[in-house]
Amino acid sequence: MSEIRLIELKESILEDNDRDAQALRSQLKEQKTFLLNLMSSPGSGKTSTLLALNEYFRGNIRWGVMEADIDSAVDAETMLKAGIPSIQLHTGGMCHLDADMTRQGITAFDRHDLDLIVLENIGNLVCPAEFDTGAAMNMTILSVPEGDDKPVKYPLMYEVADVLVVNKIDAMCVFDFDCERMEKTVKKRNPDMKIFYISAKTGEGVAALAAYLIEQVKEHNQ
Amino acid sequence: MSEIRLIELKESILEDNDRDAQALRSQLKEQKTFLLNLMSSPGSGKTSTLLALNEYFRGNIRWGVMEADIDSAVDAETMLKAGIPSIQLHTGGMCHLDADMTRQGITAFDRHDLDLIVLENIGNLVCPAEFDTGAAMNMTILSVPEGDDKPVKYPLMYEVADVLVVNKIDAMCVFDFDCERMEKTVKKRNPDMKIFYISAKTGEGVAALAAYLIEQVKEHNQ
Repeated sequence: MSEIRLIELKESILEDNDRDAQALRSQLKEQKTFLLNLMSSPGSGKTSTLLALNEYFRGNIRWGVMEADIDSAVDAETMLKAGIPSIQLHTGGMCHLDADMTRQGITAFDRHDLDLIVLENIGNLVCPAEFDTGAAMNMTILSVPEGDDKPVKYPLMYEVADVLVVNKIDAMCVFDFDCERMEKTVKKRNPDMKIFYISAKTGEGVAALAAYLIEQVKEHNQ
Repeated sequence: MSEIRLIELKESILEDNDRDAQALRSQLKEQKTFLLNLMSSPGSGKTSTLLALNEYFRGNIRWGVMEADIDSAVDAETMLKAGIPSIQLHTGGMCHLDADMTRQGITAFDRHDLDLIVLENIGNLVCPAEFDTGAAMNMTILSVPEGDDKPVKYPLMYEVADVLVVNKIDAMCVFDFDCERMEKTVKKRNPDMKIFYISAKTGEGVAALAAYLIEQVKEHNQ
Protein backbone atom coordinates (compact mmCIF):
# COMPACT_ATOMS: atom_id res chain seq x y z
CA MET A 1 0.00 0.00 0.00
CA SER A 2 1.32 3.44 -0.96
CA GLU A 3 1.82 5.97 1.77
CA ILE A 4 -1.08 8.38 2.30
CA ARG A 5 -0.36 11.92 1.15
CA LEU A 6 -1.99 14.62 3.25
CA ILE A 7 -2.40 18.07 1.70
CA GLU A 8 -3.35 21.02 3.93
CA LEU A 9 -5.36 23.41 1.75
CA LYS A 10 -5.11 27.18 2.14
CA GLU A 11 -8.16 29.39 2.00
CA SER A 12 -8.51 31.13 -1.32
CA ILE A 13 -7.79 34.86 -1.52
CA LEU A 14 -9.43 35.24 -4.92
CA GLU A 15 -12.58 37.30 -4.94
CA ASP A 16 -14.18 35.95 -8.07
CA ASN A 17 -14.54 32.22 -7.52
CA ASP A 18 -16.91 31.79 -10.47
CA ARG A 19 -14.34 33.17 -12.90
CA ASP A 20 -11.59 31.10 -11.31
CA ALA A 21 -13.75 27.97 -11.61
CA GLN A 22 -14.32 28.66 -15.32
CA ALA A 23 -10.59 29.01 -15.82
CA LEU A 24 -9.90 25.71 -14.07
CA ARG A 25 -12.66 24.01 -16.08
CA SER A 26 -11.13 25.19 -19.37
CA GLN A 27 -7.67 24.10 -18.30
CA LEU A 28 -8.90 20.62 -17.36
CA LYS A 29 -10.85 20.30 -20.61
CA GLU A 30 -7.68 21.12 -22.52
CA GLN A 31 -5.58 18.58 -20.64
CA LYS A 32 -8.36 15.97 -21.08
CA THR A 33 -9.08 15.46 -17.41
CA PHE A 34 -12.71 15.11 -16.33
CA LEU A 35 -13.22 16.52 -12.82
CA LEU A 36 -16.25 15.12 -10.98
CA ASN A 37 -17.37 16.94 -7.83
CA LEU A 38 -19.11 14.44 -5.55
CA MET A 39 -21.26 15.88 -2.76
CA SER A 40 -23.70 14.55 -0.14
CA SER A 41 -24.62 14.50 3.54
CA PRO A 42 -22.20 12.71 5.85
CA GLY A 43 -22.73 8.97 5.60
CA SER A 44 -24.72 8.87 2.36
CA GLY A 45 -22.16 6.53 0.86
CA LYS A 46 -19.79 8.65 -1.25
CA THR A 47 -16.80 6.41 -0.59
CA SER A 48 -18.67 3.12 -0.98
CA THR A 49 -20.26 4.33 -4.24
CA LEU A 50 -16.79 5.09 -5.61
CA LEU A 51 -15.60 1.64 -4.58
CA ALA A 52 -18.59 0.07 -6.34
CA LEU A 53 -17.93 2.15 -9.50
CA ASN A 54 -14.30 1.01 -9.52
CA GLU A 55 -15.39 -2.46 -10.62
CA TYR A 56 -16.62 -0.88 -13.87
CA PHE A 57 -14.02 1.88 -14.26
CA ARG A 58 -11.12 -0.55 -14.02
CA GLY A 59 -9.85 -1.29 -17.50
CA ASN A 60 -12.12 1.34 -19.06
CA ILE A 61 -10.80 4.63 -17.72
CA ARG A 62 -7.85 5.69 -15.60
CA TRP A 63 -9.07 7.46 -12.51
CA GLY A 64 -8.13 8.77 -9.10
CA VAL A 65 -9.74 10.38 -6.07
CA MET A 66 -9.07 13.49 -4.01
CA GLU A 67 -10.64 12.90 -0.61
CA ALA A 68 -11.54 16.15 1.15
CA ASP A 69 -12.14 16.08 4.86
CA ILE A 70 -12.04 18.27 7.94
CA ASP A 71 -9.85 15.76 9.68
CA SER A 72 -8.74 12.11 9.36
CA ALA A 73 -7.48 10.20 6.34
CA VAL A 74 -9.77 7.18 6.51
CA ASP A 75 -11.25 7.66 3.03
CA ALA A 76 -7.90 8.00 1.26
CA GLU A 77 -6.74 4.87 3.11
CA THR A 78 -9.80 3.00 1.83
CA MET A 79 -9.16 4.10 -1.76
CA LEU A 80 -5.48 3.19 -1.68
CA LYS A 81 -6.31 -0.23 -0.24
CA ALA A 82 -8.58 -0.74 -3.27
CA GLY A 83 -5.70 0.19 -5.57
CA ILE A 84 -7.19 3.58 -6.57
CA PRO A 85 -4.71 6.51 -6.75
CA SER A 86 -5.76 8.92 -4.01
CA ILE A 87 -4.69 11.85 -1.87
CA GLN A 88 -6.26 13.27 1.26
CA LEU A 89 -7.07 16.99 1.34
CA HIS A 90 -7.64 18.73 4.66
CA THR A 91 -9.67 21.93 4.63
CA GLY A 92 -8.55 23.12 8.05
CA GLY A 93 -12.08 23.17 9.43
CA MET A 94 -13.65 24.74 6.35
CA CYS A 95 -16.98 23.30 5.24
CA HIS A 96 -16.37 23.45 1.49
CA LEU A 97 -13.79 23.68 -1.30
CA ASP A 98 -13.70 26.49 -3.83
CA ALA A 99 -11.98 26.44 -7.24
CA ASP A 100 -8.63 27.60 -5.89
CA MET A 101 -8.58 24.94 -3.18
CA THR A 102 -9.52 22.34 -5.78
CA ARG A 103 -6.63 23.52 -7.96
CA GLN A 104 -4.26 23.22 -4.98
CA GLY A 105 -5.41 19.61 -4.62
CA ILE A 106 -5.00 18.83 -8.32
CA THR A 107 -1.52 20.38 -8.36
CA ALA A 108 -0.48 18.38 -5.30
CA PHE A 109 -2.01 15.18 -6.74
CA ASP A 110 0.21 15.75 -9.80
CA ARG A 111 -1.31 13.01 -11.98
CA HIS A 112 -1.54 13.88 -15.66
CA ASP A 113 -2.29 10.33 -16.75
CA LEU A 114 -5.84 10.24 -15.34
CA ASP A 115 -9.01 10.50 -17.45
CA LEU A 116 -11.12 11.17 -14.38
CA ILE A 117 -10.41 12.82 -11.04
CA VAL A 118 -13.17 12.61 -8.45
CA LEU A 119 -13.24 15.28 -5.77
CA GLU A 120 -15.01 13.71 -2.80
CA ASN A 121 -16.22 16.92 -1.16
CA ILE A 122 -16.89 17.54 2.56
CA GLY A 123 -20.02 15.71 3.76
CA ASN A 124 -22.41 18.67 3.85
CA LEU A 125 -25.50 19.65 1.85
CA VAL A 126 -25.17 23.39 2.42
CA CYS A 127 -21.73 24.94 1.85
CA PRO A 128 -20.28 22.79 -0.95
CA ALA A 129 -23.32 23.62 -3.10
CA GLU A 130 -22.43 27.32 -2.94
CA PHE A 131 -18.99 27.06 -4.53
CA ASP A 132 -18.20 26.16 -8.11
CA THR A 133 -15.10 23.94 -7.90
CA GLY A 134 -14.39 24.03 -11.62
CA ALA A 135 -15.70 20.49 -12.06
CA ALA A 136 -17.13 19.29 -15.37
CA MET A 137 -19.94 17.59 -13.44
CA ASN A 138 -21.57 17.89 -10.01
CA MET A 139 -22.98 14.66 -8.61
CA THR A 140 -24.90 14.38 -5.36
CA ILE A 141 -25.91 11.30 -3.42
CA LEU A 142 -29.13 11.04 -1.43
CA SER A 143 -29.36 7.89 0.64
CA VAL A 144 -32.77 6.37 1.32
CA PRO A 145 -32.51 6.57 5.16
CA GLU A 146 -32.08 10.37 4.95
CA GLY A 147 -35.63 10.71 3.71
CA ASP A 148 -37.31 11.94 0.54
CA ASP A 149 -37.64 15.52 1.83
CA LYS A 150 -33.99 16.53 1.45
CA PRO A 151 -34.56 18.30 -1.91
CA VAL A 152 -37.18 20.49 -0.18
CA LYS A 153 -34.80 21.42 2.64
CA TYR A 154 -31.53 21.81 0.75
CA PRO A 155 -32.73 23.12 -2.63
CA LEU A 156 -29.45 24.63 -3.81
CA MET A 157 -27.69 21.25 -3.77
CA TYR A 158 -30.34 19.85 -6.09
CA GLU A 159 -30.12 22.90 -8.37
CA VAL A 160 -26.36 22.74 -8.89
CA ALA A 161 -26.16 18.95 -9.30
CA ASP A 162 -26.17 17.39 -12.77
CA VAL A 163 -26.58 13.85 -11.48
CA LEU A 164 -28.50 12.57 -8.46
CA VAL A 165 -27.64 9.12 -7.14
CA VAL A 166 -30.21 7.62 -4.78
CA ASN A 167 -28.16 5.17 -2.71
CA LYS A 168 -28.96 2.39 -0.20
CA ILE A 169 -32.04 1.26 -2.16
CA ASP A 170 -31.55 -2.16 -0.52
CA ALA A 171 -32.85 -0.47 2.67
CA MET A 172 -35.99 0.82 0.92
CA CYS A 173 -38.14 -1.72 2.77
CA VAL A 174 -37.29 -0.38 6.24
CA PHE A 175 -37.72 3.32 5.43
CA ASP A 176 -40.61 5.39 4.12
CA PHE A 177 -39.15 6.90 0.99
CA ASP A 178 -41.47 8.18 -1.70
CA CYS A 179 -39.45 8.15 -4.95
CA GLU A 180 -42.21 9.80 -6.94
CA ARG A 181 -42.57 12.72 -4.53
CA MET A 182 -38.80 13.16 -4.35
CA GLU A 183 -38.39 13.12 -8.14
CA LYS A 184 -41.22 15.61 -8.55
CA THR A 185 -39.53 18.10 -6.19
CA VAL A 186 -36.15 17.61 -7.86
CA LYS A 187 -37.44 17.95 -11.42
CA LYS A 188 -39.33 21.15 -10.53
CA ARG A 189 -36.05 22.83 -9.59
CA ASN A 190 -33.83 20.97 -12.01
CA PRO A 191 -35.66 19.48 -15.00
CA ASP A 192 -32.42 18.14 -16.54
CA MET A 193 -31.29 16.14 -13.50
CA LYS A 194 -30.17 12.63 -14.35
CA ILE A 195 -31.33 10.27 -11.59
CA PHE A 196 -29.88 6.84 -10.82
CA TYR A 197 -31.01 4.38 -8.14
CA ILE A 198 -28.27 2.19 -6.71
CA SER A 199 -27.14 0.12 -3.79
CA ALA A 200 -23.39 0.51 -3.40
CA LYS A 201 -23.62 -2.43 -0.98
CA THR A 202 -25.36 -5.00 -3.20
CA GLY A 203 -24.19 -3.49 -6.49
CA GLU A 204 -27.73 -3.03 -7.83
CA GLY A 205 -27.95 -0.22 -10.39
CA VAL A 206 -24.23 0.56 -10.32
CA ALA A 207 -23.58 -0.70 -13.88
CA ALA A 208 -25.93 1.89 -15.41
CA LEU A 209 -24.40 4.73 -13.39
CA ALA A 210 -20.89 3.61 -14.32
CA ALA A 211 -21.78 3.37 -18.02
CA TYR A 212 -23.20 6.89 -17.98
CA LEU A 213 -20.15 8.33 -16.22
CA ILE A 214 -17.69 6.55 -18.53
CA GLU A 215 -19.59 7.90 -21.54
CA GLN A 216 -19.48 11.44 -20.13
CA VAL A 217 -15.75 11.18 -19.36
CA LYS A 218 -14.95 9.89 -22.87
CA GLU A 219 -17.08 12.58 -24.55
CA HIS A 220 -15.41 15.33 -22.47
CA ASN A 221 -11.88 14.08 -23.12
CA GLN A 222 -12.23 13.56 -26.89
CA MET B 1 -53.52 24.56 13.24
CA SER B 2 -51.82 27.85 14.06
CA GLU B 3 -50.29 29.79 11.22
CA ILE B 4 -46.59 29.19 10.67
CA ARG B 5 -44.39 32.08 11.67
CA LEU B 6 -41.32 32.57 9.50
CA ILE B 7 -38.43 34.57 10.93
CA GLU B 8 -35.63 35.73 8.62
CA LEU B 9 -32.47 35.88 10.75
CA LYS B 10 -29.81 38.53 10.21
CA GLU B 11 -26.13 37.71 10.32
CA SER B 12 -24.53 38.73 13.59
CA ILE B 13 -22.22 41.71 13.63
CA LEU B 14 -20.78 40.85 17.04
CA GLU B 15 -17.16 39.84 17.02
CA ASP B 16 -17.04 37.88 20.24
CA ASN B 17 -19.61 35.12 19.82
CA ASP B 18 -18.32 33.16 22.82
CA ARG B 19 -18.94 36.08 25.17
CA ASP B 20 -22.33 36.75 23.62
CA ALA B 21 -23.24 33.07 24.05
CA GLN B 22 -22.29 33.20 27.74
CA ALA B 23 -24.49 36.29 28.20
CA LEU B 24 -27.45 34.55 26.54
CA ARG B 25 -26.87 31.42 28.65
CA SER B 26 -26.94 33.48 31.88
CA GLN B 27 -30.05 35.31 30.79
CA LEU B 28 -31.88 32.07 29.99
CA LYS B 29 -30.77 30.51 33.28
CA GLU B 30 -32.21 33.50 35.13
CA GLN B 31 -35.54 33.33 33.30
CA LYS B 32 -35.68 29.55 33.88
CA THR B 33 -35.63 28.54 30.23
CA PHE B 34 -33.54 25.54 29.20
CA LEU B 35 -32.20 25.94 25.67
CA LEU B 36 -31.28 22.69 23.93
CA ASN B 37 -29.23 22.94 20.73
CA LEU B 38 -29.99 19.89 18.56
CA MET B 39 -27.55 19.13 15.76
CA SER B 40 -26.98 16.34 13.22
CA SER B 41 -26.49 15.47 9.56
CA PRO B 42 -29.46 16.03 7.28
CA GLY B 43 -31.92 13.18 7.67
CA SER B 44 -30.62 11.73 10.96
CA GLY B 45 -34.06 12.16 12.50
CA LYS B 46 -33.99 15.42 14.50
CA THR B 47 -37.65 16.17 13.87
CA SER B 48 -38.88 12.62 14.41
CA THR B 49 -36.87 12.33 17.64
CA LEU B 50 -38.56 15.49 18.94
CA LEU B 51 -41.96 14.08 18.02
CA ALA B 52 -41.13 10.85 19.88
CA LEU B 53 -39.95 12.83 22.94
CA ASN B 54 -43.19 14.81 22.95
CA GLU B 55 -45.06 11.75 24.20
CA TYR B 56 -43.01 11.97 27.41
CA PHE B 57 -42.64 15.76 27.67
CA ARG B 58 -46.39 16.34 27.48
CA GLY B 59 -47.73 16.92 30.98
CA ASN B 60 -44.20 16.99 32.43
CA ILE B 61 -42.65 20.11 30.96
CA ARG B 62 -43.82 22.95 28.77
CA TRP B 63 -41.75 23.10 25.63
CA GLY B 64 -41.44 24.54 22.15
CA VAL B 65 -39.22 24.28 19.09
CA MET B 66 -37.36 26.77 16.91
CA GLU B 67 -36.84 25.07 13.56
CA ALA B 68 -33.83 26.46 11.69
CA ASP B 69 -33.55 25.84 7.99
CA ILE B 70 -32.03 27.25 4.84
CA ASP B 71 -35.39 27.19 3.17
CA SER B 72 -38.86 25.62 3.60
CA ALA B 73 -41.06 25.41 6.67
CA VAL B 74 -41.83 21.70 6.63
CA ASP B 75 -40.44 21.03 10.13
CA ALA B 76 -42.37 23.83 11.84
CA GLU B 77 -45.51 22.58 10.08
CA THR B 78 -44.87 19.09 11.46
CA MET B 79 -44.41 20.44 15.01
CA LEU B 80 -47.54 22.60 14.91
CA LYS B 81 -49.58 19.65 13.61
CA ALA B 82 -48.41 17.72 16.69
CA GLY B 83 -49.54 20.60 18.91
CA ILE B 84 -46.02 21.74 19.80
CA PRO B 85 -45.43 25.53 19.84
CA SER B 86 -42.98 26.23 17.02
CA ILE B 87 -41.52 28.88 14.76
CA GLN B 88 -39.47 28.54 11.61
CA LEU B 89 -36.14 30.37 11.42
CA HIS B 90 -34.52 30.98 8.03
CA THR B 91 -30.79 31.56 7.98
CA GLY B 92 -30.67 33.07 4.51
CA GLY B 93 -28.35 30.39 3.18
CA MET B 94 -26.06 30.38 6.22
CA CYS B 95 -24.95 26.96 7.42
CA HIS B 96 -25.17 27.62 11.16
CA LEU B 97 -26.64 29.83 13.91
CA ASP B 98 -24.53 31.83 16.34
CA ALA B 99 -25.65 33.22 19.71
CA ASP B 100 -27.01 36.46 18.28
CA MET B 101 -29.10 34.66 15.65
CA THR B 102 -30.39 32.32 18.36
CA ARG B 103 -31.37 35.35 20.46
CA GLN B 104 -33.20 36.83 17.45
CA GLY B 105 -35.16 33.58 17.24
CA ILE B 106 -35.96 33.51 20.96
CA THR B 107 -37.09 37.14 20.90
CA ALA B 108 -39.33 36.49 17.91
CA PHE B 109 -40.70 33.28 19.49
CA ASP B 110 -41.68 35.44 22.48
CA ARG B 111 -42.71 32.57 24.78
CA HIS B 112 -41.84 33.11 28.43
CA ASP B 113 -43.98 30.23 29.67
CA LEU B 114 -41.74 27.47 28.31
CA ASP B 115 -39.41 25.33 30.46
CA LEU B 116 -37.57 24.07 27.38
CA ILE B 117 -36.85 25.56 23.99
CA VAL B 118 -35.24 23.27 21.44
CA LEU B 119 -33.24 24.86 18.66
CA GLU B 120 -33.29 22.40 15.79
CA ASN B 121 -30.13 23.55 14.05
CA ILE B 122 -29.29 23.32 10.32
CA GLY B 123 -28.61 19.72 9.24
CA ASN B 124 -24.81 19.89 9.07
CA LEU B 125 -22.01 18.27 11.08
CA VAL B 126 -19.42 20.96 10.37
CA CYS B 127 -20.51 24.58 10.81
CA PRO B 128 -23.04 24.37 13.70
CA ALA B 129 -20.37 22.70 15.85
CA GLU B 130 -18.18 25.79 15.54
CA PHE B 131 -20.61 28.27 17.09
CA ASP B 132 -21.75 28.39 20.70
CA THR B 133 -25.46 29.26 20.51
CA GLY B 134 -25.80 29.98 24.23
CA ALA B 135 -27.59 26.68 24.80
CA ALA B 136 -27.49 24.92 28.18
CA MET B 137 -26.94 21.63 26.35
CA ASN B 138 -25.71 20.48 22.95
CA MET B 139 -27.22 17.25 21.68
CA THR B 140 -26.23 15.50 18.47
CA ILE B 141 -27.91 12.64 16.66
CA LEU B 142 -26.03 9.98 14.73
CA SER B 143 -28.27 7.66 12.78
CA VAL B 144 -27.18 4.08 12.20
CA PRO B 145 -27.27 4.27 8.36
CA GLU B 146 -24.69 7.11 8.43
CA GLY B 147 -22.06 4.69 9.72
CA ASP B 148 -19.98 4.36 12.87
CA ASP B 149 -17.10 6.44 11.46
CA LYS B 150 -18.75 9.86 11.73
CA PRO B 151 -16.97 10.72 15.04
CA VAL B 152 -13.64 10.12 13.26
CA LYS B 153 -14.55 12.42 10.37
CA TYR B 154 -16.38 15.21 12.20
CA PRO B 155 -14.55 15.28 15.54
CA LEU B 156 -15.55 18.79 16.63
CA MET B 157 -19.25 17.90 16.68
CA TYR B 158 -18.51 15.06 19.10
CA GLU B 159 -16.33 17.30 21.25
CA VAL B 160 -18.92 20.04 21.73
CA ALA B 161 -21.90 17.71 22.26
CA ASP B 162 -23.00 16.79 25.79
CA VAL B 163 -25.41 14.10 24.64
CA LEU B 164 -25.16 11.70 21.70
CA VAL B 165 -28.33 10.04 20.49
CA VAL B 166 -27.82 7.04 18.22
CA ASN B 167 -31.04 6.88 16.21
CA LYS B 168 -32.64 4.36 13.82
CA ILE B 169 -31.43 1.38 15.85
CA ASP B 170 -34.35 -0.56 14.34
CA ALA B 171 -32.27 -0.53 11.11
CA MET B 172 -29.20 -1.98 12.85
CA CYS B 173 -29.73 -5.34 11.13
CA VAL B 174 -29.35 -3.92 7.60
CA PHE B 175 -26.26 -1.80 8.28
CA ASP B 176 -22.78 -2.56 9.56
CA PHE B 177 -22.56 -0.34 12.63
CA ASP B 178 -20.01 -1.16 15.29
CA CYS B 179 -21.31 0.45 18.52
CA GLU B 180 -18.22 -0.47 20.48
CA ARG B 181 -15.84 1.11 17.98
CA MET B 182 -18.00 4.23 17.71
CA GLU B 183 -18.21 4.64 21.51
CA LYS B 184 -14.48 4.17 21.87
CA THR B 185 -13.77 6.99 19.39
CA VAL B 186 -16.33 9.28 21.02
CA LYS B 187 -15.15 8.65 24.59
CA LYS B 188 -11.53 9.30 23.61
CA ARG B 189 -12.45 12.85 22.56
CA ASN B 190 -15.27 13.40 25.01
CA PRO B 191 -15.14 11.12 28.09
CA ASP B 192 -18.26 12.74 29.63
CA MET B 193 -20.53 12.15 26.64
CA LYS B 194 -23.91 10.69 27.61
CA ILE B 195 -24.97 8.18 24.94
CA PHE B 196 -28.51 6.97 24.28
CA TYR B 197 -29.66 4.42 21.70
CA ILE B 198 -33.14 4.98 20.31
CA SER B 199 -35.50 4.38 17.45
CA ALA B 200 -37.69 7.42 16.99
CA LYS B 201 -39.78 5.24 14.68
CA THR B 202 -40.52 2.32 17.02
CA GLY B 203 -40.10 4.31 20.25
CA GLU B 204 -37.39 2.00 21.61
CA GLY B 205 -35.10 3.77 24.08
CA VAL B 206 -36.95 7.09 23.91
CA ALA B 207 -38.27 6.86 27.50
CA ALA B 208 -34.76 6.85 28.97
CA LEU B 209 -33.66 9.81 26.84
CA ALA B 210 -36.81 11.74 27.75
CA ALA B 211 -36.33 11.03 31.47
CA TYR B 212 -32.75 12.29 31.32
CA LEU B 213 -33.71 15.46 29.47
CA ILE B 214 -36.63 16.22 31.80
CA GLU B 215 -34.31 15.79 34.78
CA GLN B 216 -31.76 18.17 33.24
CA VAL B 217 -34.42 20.77 32.44
CA LYS B 218 -35.85 20.65 35.98
CA GLU B 219 -32.41 20.89 37.58
CA HIS B 220 -31.49 23.88 35.40
CA ASN B 221 -34.74 25.73 36.03
CA GLN B 222 -34.81 25.25 39.82
